[in-house]
Amino acid sequence: MESTVGIVTPQSATFDLELRLESGRVLGPITLTYETYGELNRDKSNVVLVAHAWTGDAHAAGRHDPDDRKPGWWDSMIGPGKVLDTERYFVICSNVIGSCKGSTGPTSINPRTGKRYKLNFPVVMVRDMVRAQRLLLERLQIDNLLTVIGGSMGAMQALEWGIHYPEMVRSIIPIAGTGRTSPMAISLNAVARQAIYNDPLWKKGNYRPEHPPADGLALARAIGHISFLSDASMHLKFGRRFSARDGQFDFFGQFEVERYLEYNGGSFIDKFDTNSFLYLAKALDLYDVSWGFESLEEAMQQLQCPSLWFAFSSDWLYPPDQTEEVVRVLEQLDKPVEYHLIQSDYGHDSFLVEPEKFTPKVSAFLDKLL
Amino acid sequence: MESTVGIVTPQSATFDLELRLESGRVLGPITLTYETYGELNRDKSNVVLVAHAWTGDAHAAGRHDPDDRKPGWWDSMIGPGKVLDTERYFVICSNVIGSCKGSTGPTSINPRTGKRYKLNFPVVMVRDMVRAQRLLLERLQIDNLLTVIGGSMGAMQALEWGIHYPEMVRSIIPIAGTGRTSPMAISLNAVARQAIYNDPLWKKGNYRPEHPPADGLALARAIGHISFLSDASMHLKFGRRFSARDGQFDFFGQFEVERYLEYNGGSFIDKFDTNSFLYLAKALDLYDVSWGFESLEEAMQQLQCPSLWFAFSSDWLYPPDQTEEVVRVLEQLDKPVEYHLIQSDYGHDSFLVEPEKFTPKVSAFLDKLL
Repeated sequence: MESTVGIVTPQSATFDLELRLESGRVLGPITLTYETYGELNRDKSNVVLVAHAWTGDAHAAGRHDPDDRKPGWWDSMIGPGKVLDTERYFVICSNVIGSCKGSTGPTSINPRTGKRYKLNFPVVMVRDMVRAQRLLLERLQIDNLLTVIGGSMGAMQALEWGIHYPEMVRSIIPIAGTGRTSPMAISLNAVARQAIYNDPLWKKGNYRPEHPPADGLALARAIGHISFLSDASMHLKFGRRFSARDGQFDFFGQFEVERYLEYNGGSFIDKFDTNSFLYLAKALDLYDVSWGFESLEEAMQQLQCPSLWFAFSSDWLYPPDQTEEVVRVLEQLDKPVEYHLIQSDYGHDSFLVEPEKFTPKVSAFLDKLL
Repeated sequence: MESTVGIVTPQSATFDLELRLESGRVLGPITLTYETYGELNRDKSNVVLVAHAWTGDAHAAGRHDPDDRKPGWWDSMIGPGKVLDTERYFVICSNVIGSCKGSTGPTSINPRTGKRYKLNFPVVMVRDMVRAQRLLLERLQIDNLLTVIGGSMGAMQALEWGIHYPEMVRSIIPIAGTGRTSPMAISLNAVARQAIYNDPLWKKGNYRPEHPPADGLALARAIGHISFLSDASMHLKFGRRFSARDGQFDFFGQFEVERYLEYNGGSFIDKFDTNSFLYLAKALDLYDVSWGFESLEEAMQQLQCPSLWFAFSSDWLYPPDQTEEVVRVLEQLDKPVEYHLIQSDYGHDSFLVEPEKFTPKVSAFLDKLL
């Protein structure tokens, strides 16, 4: 008996305006694709905003078609009786600007030229993504969010929501996030970027959509996958097993873990636009919650609501001490804050792989708010 | 006042034979380039063999030319009055087979074809490297090593020496090593490999020496550098500083850490042959001290000499628990073993960057042996 939101249909909203970005540039018109699950209650007090990660999308739960092989990316979290209980909450998941999943990004038409933006798309920050999402909530006539929850880049969005729209947000739940992207995380994105730049098909972003720089994007994605996993999860999944089809002394022979990376890199090229991948990587690298403030303390001082934080013991992309740095500041500021270090072997991906390890704490936290 | 071995001249030895490798293939004739520092004593009891890492070479100390900008790679360790005191010890550093630094490798001429081996070179294991080095010691009429010491791939060689030539080895000092390369380390090599394979100039190894796959090799090296550093050392060195020449919102703008990786990747392409890089990466990936034995225990049972081990707290390429796994087995087998976990922020590279943190313990260990 699967507990599911069933068949869902993505929606989209277009805003005919020019949004001023952190960079000083403007972007508009803006389209956002989003999905909703559950029903808005009478006093509009049951809204949960779910924010997605880097290459995620608005399709967080259910299926678009009964034949879909897989449900949305956080289906384990969203549905009747689940932690984001659609019998209680009205759940919204919005795609971000810069993405290629139905929202304005480098693949969109630049109204000034009538052609795709490609590298004329402005560099955006996570703060800009949240600013655009706020337009969507206005359109939906929602001015109050029970919580904003997300993992990884979703955690960054949750934190930006809490800091920049304190009057709208009653709580935030950042999971596997960071207050500012570390040089290690930037390095990994840097080599992923370079993998794309090295591909002759990239052509400084001017590839034709039907001829993307597939080798470069696949390699960039494989590099990302390494950072999403952990030594422990790789040991569990692959150990040192050599591919059964190869000889150990074949020059091109592969370990199982290599085949996994190659497969997952290769299967990504039809799913995501390369320029979008690069713009979102840039947004991740630029992420620093104290951007525009004098200090981390000043930034966190803006947060007016309770916050619930999770970090995962084996996450080496955004390791626990980066969440703890932020939590410590909140504690020093006497803000209501709850933090849990979750023991998990699944690295950064733990928030997708082992939700059952933190969902009871999310439920308890939300129950206290209602 | 620099304490130095002064000007040194590399030597080389050629062995006109066919060496049977772990793969079953044969390799020969074999040339090894090596350097020596200090004097062999009368009873030949003062020999220290230094084993180098992946892209290292035989030039461990001193200068080839007075104008050389830098001395050998472990000059801080080797010289009069230093921990590997050339007034007491006769220090030998030998390049490995598979390398391009004066020893038989993919750039060498295949005697069967009269052309460079390139990808016809056989896949070698670390054990094969040690087997070839043994030929060199025979040639030098040395049958007794006070110690074999090395970091990273050098640690692997030290361990192989101790296990496979127990009658010749009086101690081993593996530093920042592992008993078997983890799937995480294999993954990082896998994406480095792919970076090279993706370069159109690679041509399945058939590039012309004057036209190497420079972009691919530079990227592969940059990936390696990430794994040699640590989050802490990157914070110390670069933090989140943005390159002063770039705007933060330039699409191609770089953080300092990115520029560092790009620079170090780019400066590597004239220093190392791409095929050699790949063969040695393969040797690293295949490394498992228990290869050919029933178990790790059976392998370690072969070790007859005292061993001194160092691991570094911030090394995430070959993290401390991998050294500890081996040390624990030695303890269970009642072998004389000494292990130190060194607190250092410099990641895997700590063995090159902060030798002063472990050299006193090396001195004490060697003093007890003499």
